[in-house]
Amino acid sequence: MQILGQILEQIEGRIRAYSGPREPEGLYAPVGYIMTLGGKRIRPLLCAAGYLVDRPELEERVLDACLALELFHNFSLVHDDIMDEAPLRRGKPTVHERWNVPTAILAGDVMLIDVYEQLRMASLPGQLSAVLRCFHGVAVGVCEGQQRDMAFEQAAGVTWDAYLEMIRGKTAVLLGGSLELGGLLAGMDHDRAVLLGRLGEALGLAFQLEDDWLDAFGDPALTGKQPGGDILRGKKTALYVMSMAMAGAESRLELERWFDPGTVSEPQTRVQAVLDIFERSGSREAVAARAAGYHEEALGLLDQLDGRGPGATLIRHLVGQLKGRKH
Amino acid sequence: MQILGQILEQIEGRIRAYSGPREPEGLYAPVGYIMTLGGKRIRPLLCAAGYLVDRPELEERVLDACLALELFHNFSLVHDDIMDEAPLRRGKPTVHERWNVPTAILAGDVMLIDVYEQLRMASLPGQLSAVLRCFHGVAVGVCEGQQRDMAFEQAAGVTWDAYLEMIRGKTAVLLGGSLELGGLLAGMDHDRAVLLGRLGEALGLAFQLEDDWLDAFGDPALTGKQPGGDILRGKKTALYVMSMAMAGAESRLELERWFDPGTVSEPQTRVQAVLDIFERSGSREAVAARAAGYHEEALGLLDQLDGRGPGATLIRHLVGQLKGRKH
Repeated sequence: MQILGQILEQIEGRIRAYSGPREPEGLYAPVGYIMTLGGKRIRPLLCAAGYLVDRPELEERVLDACLALELFHNFSLVHDDIMDEAPLRRGKPTVHERWNVPTAILAGDVMLIDVYEQLRMASLPGQLSAVLRCFHGVAVGVCEGQQRDMAFEQAAGVTWDAYLEMIRGKTAVLLGGSLELGGLLAGMDHDRAVLLGRLGEALGLAFQLEDDWLDAFGDPALTGKQPGGDILRGKKTALYVMSMAMAGAESRLELERWFDPGTVSEPQTRVQAVLDIFERSGSREAVAARAAGYHEEALGLLDQLDGRGPGATLIRHLVGQLKGRKH
Repeated sequence: MQILGQILEQIEGRIRAYSGPREPEGLYAPVGYIMTLGGKRIRPLLCAAGYLVDRPELEERVLDACLALELFHNFSLVHDDIMDEAPLRRGKPTVHERWNVPTAILAGDVMLIDVYEQLRMASLPGQLSAVLRCFHGVAVGVCEGQQRDMAFEQAAGVTWDAYLEMIRGKTAVLLGGSLELGGLLAGMDHDRAVLLGRLGEALGLAFQLEDDWLDAFGDPALTGKQPGGDILRGKKTALYVMSMAMAGAESRLELERWFDPGTVSEPQTRVQAVLDIFERSGSREAVAARAAGYHEEALGLLDQLDGRGPGATLIRHLVGQLKGRKH
């Protein structure tokens, strides 16, 4: 899609302009580093698409909101990576590894502060309050999601509903908010903006379920990731949670044993054994079916939107890209 | 002052209402903990006083802004305490000590996010953009101040100007912003609001210089602090920086030796030796004179304000309290 390429170019330009050198360098160099590490820029793209549902073309100010969403996403990555003690992000050292923890905390803080300035600049005077109210729900949801994620890893029993609640915060609300903010900036009425938000949430849930699924069953040559990386890290993904809900008592015990950090085994043995349980418990199929269900929900909501601009087509294209992705 | 007591009571009530239990508890318990640890509530008081310069009495919505300023201050304390590895805050364990670093990072993040929601609720529609623009300058200034503070401790030579720039960010811009936001919420024109901001900055500089001075020369029975605590921690306070600017070569070398962590000595010997250098270099008097100068500047700006409400009297009282304080 030609228009998608053009929008992405505008977004990248705006990100580059923001990420240039600034004083004090010790504060802003890490900000520029993380913002130019790459990524799909899916949140800014959704914001632009949401705007274009009712409008024929982008205004310059909307790019400030696109930047705000990418900034917020990267703020959360920088702080989450400290909390998770992650050494790598997109194949490069994380900010706290390349610099140190204090620098990474402060870089995240100033990014979050800049998010609000970009949202202010993006909004017409009459839109600002609604934009901020919408974004507040999103931002709090992301923090609550990260909190649930950390609690999740330590909890004994985890339910599918608790898992969904967690990924809703971690991924879905920000994708929903990106679309909804685009709609609000275009002057969309409340009900249709909320519908855009629900569409983005469904898309986000599908996206996260597929992410978990691809980590286990995707082609490593295409994902570029270590096969079964989540299993080796003992991460309670959708496949694990669904298996615990669907499998018999014996398989559940077996699964818990493989996820016990005390269990000694060859990595390959562990991955294969867990994949077998995911398969025979029906979890592999069930998770794929849930993901497909959320995709369908997203497309159904899209049909209700009925706008005059190219946005709906763009969203349909983005949904298709995410659904068909192999990585 | 009776009115001051009433305002403080309203502010404390608003803080208590905000700090009650919320789900998920793992995220919000640390927020409630730090917000109810106490403190002078100087920023909310300044915000209320700024509002009352032109208005006869507080509106309910202004308390949201007062809360926002106290929230922002406490957000910065929580994150700074992680960066500085501080074990205690107001005599109690810091958030990252009582819980852990991830919890403290996330609690700070959600407080910062709530700051903006409170500012949104405090502002009339026509004020919101100006309020956010003013606050953005303040918030970025505080981050830059913290960055300069961390760099400061590692820098070899430090100038008085660099020291001032650092405390301007760490303390002064937030006090200035508190007054200025109060003025903006009262509908004050831009020039007078900026004058309030400058007044608060001068007050903040005086406040920080006195803080440094009291740590060295205050009465420990009144400050409740370890005498010469900053000296023992090797902190480059106003007194140190001023001494390095005023003292002869020999005293400078001596001072550097006492601040070298490798120098072995009894704490009392070290404190006394450093206090002697502060005294005979003229730094003790010079720092006190600078603080008095900023106090005078603040009072001079106050004379130019000329409002109809009780705010100017309140500010004069607060300035007097801070100036006469022994702790």
